[in-house]
Amino acid sequence: MSCVFCAIVAGDAPAITVYEDDGYLAILDIRPIVRGHVLVIPKAHTVDLTDTPPDTVATMMRIGQRVARAARASELHADGNNVVVNDGEAAFQSVFHIHLHVAPRKSGDKLSFAKGLVVRRDPDREATARILRDALAVTD
Amino acid sequence: MSCVFCAIVAGDAPAITVYEDDGYLAILDIRPIVRGHVLVIPKAHTVDLTDTPPDTVATMMRIGQRVARAARASELHADGNNVVVNDGEAAFQSVFHIHLHVAPRKSGDKLSFAKGLVVRRDPDREATARILRDALAVTD
Ligand SMILES: [Zn+2]
Ligand SMILES: [Zn+2]
Repeated sequence: MSCVFCAIVAGDAPAITVYEDDGYLAILDIRPIVRGHVLVIPKAHTVDLTDTPPDTVATMMRIGQRVARAARASELHADGNNVVVNDGEAAFQSVFHIHLHVAPRKSGDKLSFAKGLVVRRDPDREATARILRDALAVTD
Repeated sequence: MSCVFCAIVAGDAPAITVYEDDGYLAILDIRPIVRGHVLVIPKAHTVDLTDTPPDTVATMMRIGQRVARAARASELHADGNNVVVNDGEAAFQSVFHIHLHVAPRKSGDKLSFAKGLVVRRDPDREATARILRDALAVTD
């Protein structure tokens, strides 16, 4: 049951803090894909979008927006940001304590993040939408 | 001043709707990177995280979480989701009406989205954090 983000929240593991309040911590990612790559972390341990309360997800995102705006306004001179939740191991989540990535971007930074993405043809878009509509109706 | 998402919201351009309420629309992306790739779109036109009200960003994210949960619960059998705001052209934003991507993922789907990402060494992490802390204090 050792969670590196819970250890950081408890002060038992090091991190460079960008923002902190009673419920949230924003720290520099130790494996930045760009300068100023920040993780916004709720202090309470939950795993992903399935078990995290909607209010927590919303507040995490509000802080992410503030960090994104700060990255643009700051000496980092970001021209934009990728703001990302990787929800589940299948989506490249690597620490199983929910977090939001804010990756400040510069025009021409050559980060190939989303390059080479293949657009997949959906053979039945109407069916796909119906499946999601039905699941939304049931899971809410 | 033609905006394709405003046209969809107005009913003047086609889209396959997954969810709709008074303020938000969720539609299938016409260029899906995976089956069930959804865009959550506030009906009011704003461009990116710089000009979109925090309440709108938070609500867009709440709907994105619901879509992500639905993708897992549905016949799409998603094992996870990438939930992403591309904030600005430098961050691959291509439609300049803010939106949230929800891309349902399956284990082993071989989507190379974040593969090949290079971790960049930050020569002065403390300085980077200070810059962001200072900007947060000023921009809020
Ligand atoms: Zn934890
Ligand atoms: Zn628009």
